[in-house]
Amino acid sequence: MSSIAHARPAKRAFNFNAGPAALPLSVLERMRDELLDYRGTGMSVMELSHRSPEYETINSAAEQNLRKLLAIPDDYAVIFVQGGGSLQFSSVPQNLALPGKPIDVLHTGAWTAKAIGELKKGFLHNIAASTEPEKFTRVPRTEEIKLSGDASYTYLCTNNTIEGTQYHALPASAAPLVADMSSDIASRPIEVSKFGLIFAGAQKNLGPSGVTLVIVRKDLAERADKNLPTILQYRTHIKEKSLYHTPPTFAVYTLGLVTEWMAAEGGLPGIQKRNEAKAKLLYGTIDNSNGYYRCPVEKSSRSLMNVVFRVANGDEAVEKEFAKGAAAANLVGTPGHRSVGGMRISLYNAVGQDAVEALVAYMREFQRTRG
Amino acid sequence: MSSIAHARPAKRAFNFNAGPAALPLSVLERMRDELLDYRGTGMSVMELSHRSPEYETINSAAEQNLRKLLAIPDDYAVIFVQGGGSLQFSSVPQNLALPGKPIDVLHTGAWTAKAIGELKKGFLHNIAASTEPEKFTRVPRTEEIKLSGDASYTYLCTNNTIEGTQYHALPASAAPLVADMSSDIASRPIEVSKFGLIFAGAQKNLGPSGVTLVIVRKDLAERADKNLPTILQYRTHIKEKSLYHTPPTFAVYTLGLVTEWMAAEGGLPGIQKRNEAKAKLLYGTIDNSNGYYRCPVEKSSRSLMNVVFRVANGDEAVEKEFAKGAAAANLVGTPGHRSVGGMRISLYNAVGQDAVEALVAYMREFQRTRG
Repeated sequence: MSSIAHARPAKRAFNFNAGPAALPLSVLERMRDELLDYRGTGMSVMELSHRSPEYETINSAAEQNLRKLLAIPDDYAVIFVQGGGSLQFSSVPQNLALPGKPIDVLHTGAWTAKAIGELKKGFLHNIAASTEPEKFTRVPRTEEIKLSGDASYTYLCTNNTIEGTQYHALPASAAPLVADMSSDIASRPIEVSKFGLIFAGAQKNLGPSGVTLVIVRKDLAERADKNLPTILQYRTHIKEKSLYHTPPTFAVYTLGLVTEWMAAEGGLPGIQKRNEAKAKLLYGTIDNSNGYYRCPVEKSSRSLMNVVFRVANGDEAVEKEFAKGAAAANLVGTPGHRSVGGMRISLYNAVGQDAVEALVAYMREFQRTRG
Repeated sequence: MSSIAHARPAKRAFNFNAGPAALPLSVLERMRDELLDYRGTGMSVMELSHRSPEYETINSAAEQNLRKLLAIPDDYAVIFVQGGGSLQFSSVPQNLALPGKPIDVLHTGAWTAKAIGELKKGFLHNIAASTEPEKFTRVPRTEEIKLSGDASYTYLCTNNTIEGTQYHALPASAAPLVADMSSDIASRPIEVSKFGLIFAGAQKNLGPSGVTLVIVRKDLAERADKNLPTILQYRTHIKEKSLYHTPPTFAVYTLGLVTEWMAAEGGLPGIQKRNEAKAKLLYGTIDNSNGYYRCPVEKSSRSLMNVVFRVANGDEAVEKEFAKGAAAANLVGTPGHRSVGGMRISLYNAVGQDAVEALVAYMREFQRTRG
């Protein structure tokens, strides 16, 4: 199929959705070209048996590519599971909580609140820091964090999609760090060895929704009670190399294509440079608007992935108009999360510099004519 | 994109995989044509926000189409979840078991064994019938089933993929019937009101892997302890109309396209006729082979979805040759499950009569030259 010339679609939106989000055009084109016949098999990837050599190659290549991109050490397992971050909110404590040892939590917004909601169902835990009094406009400072000393693990969300905050340095913790990295995984190099476990829904930086990446230090996966449902034990998926049951094959395939794209873009150092340039352009536009646009997040905590801001002092009618005009200008997904309002621009890996340039041009014009 | 002429792939395999399995060609073509631009949005379905009106329409249309096709009464909820049948093995008892009231199980093979494995982790249960002494070559007879009388529910697997058996009449049960219908859902009309809960991974008759259909009588979903993880409670997904968390959007979209295809094929009565014709041709070929091919399953329990048989009295070398020759003849997925050996031909909805005709021609020729 790759030899067939396809017309490019009439238009491609500039997509600032918070997740599911933009995918690289080259990945989508490859999927389209292979959709009816995956590399001579006469079948779509969706039609392959998950026990076929073709799918086993897709599965292991996705894992190996991630290992290389993220420099994941050998004592960590890399598994693909279902259920998103929302299932991890219960799976993590079910697998990793030790009797009598609390879970230390750094509370930074809506997603850590969800995780805490699941801990309240019988898991000993301790809110080691919370920036709720600051309306989550920053992540906690080192001196604010009160760890238990004997914790099962320390839990944090490295990037807070709704509030637009991100850690730019990791908190120190003697207990293993466990991170919800759903919205900034693979956006910059990380030191995996500083974590006990990392999980991330794929639908922001890694691919489509429906597959969740878990990176877990293998010894920690052995903490789980074997009476937990088999499918909810990390060790099950480690042992079976993510093939314990029928995996979400098409989502894993797509994730694999995205890892190939990331490698071609210079790996995580290259991706990080792109992301920094995009964020710099957008935050610069906000900061140089004489207050017409205003980002509520403290500068040291600003997210490179989700840029939140208010328009005209948070005038909701003007913000609605901003979003409406943006959509008409082919700029999709600018409204903030329904729980907080305002605007939110997600700048995940597949969002191009051209998209941000189109957006800031629109912002300047909007301010000129409406401000 | 729909106006662009695409070349058809050079070959399409005749796909007898047990799941993930064949999809209708027209569905794949539609997905390909919409992959870069879903109906003028300038985005792939994978790039749409799950909170967008476009995706909400996809989600609710998939539900409504299933309600219509399966004639699902209003007091039943229809939800899409992740985790496959394997997660349901624990989710069903977690949600539906009542204190002191056992779960009655009809044990018919590898998949009910998996379900029983999860029940052994603390759920009161009773094996009300087992055809293990018959090596699972049939489903239980009415007079063999010993129900508790006060069960939380009665559990069965309506079609046993590995053993090639299927119920052609439902057992009577005062307690709600709960069915793993993964491998025969939507293959024939069913009376939903006879069940308390039905679950099915999509990857056989409904679409791709990565999405699981649950049909549950709404009052039963209220049995669950609210201390269960939120995401594992059926009531959560009922309340949020399958949008509690980010759903596997592309899988639900594909499932929706498959439901449209089923409606165009005459709905479940039309689908059933096709399935009966395909199975008749294949079982007839086996039964008329003078014993060269032999189906171990008792006739009254034969599955219309998964036809298992042995070649040359189960000579494994000959069976290997059969599978190899079949693959060379573009007939994919003929080997039986690795746990039982022999051959297995899956005849799910999207497998055409032409595929079965090609297969039986191959079988006759193989017997002629090798038998």
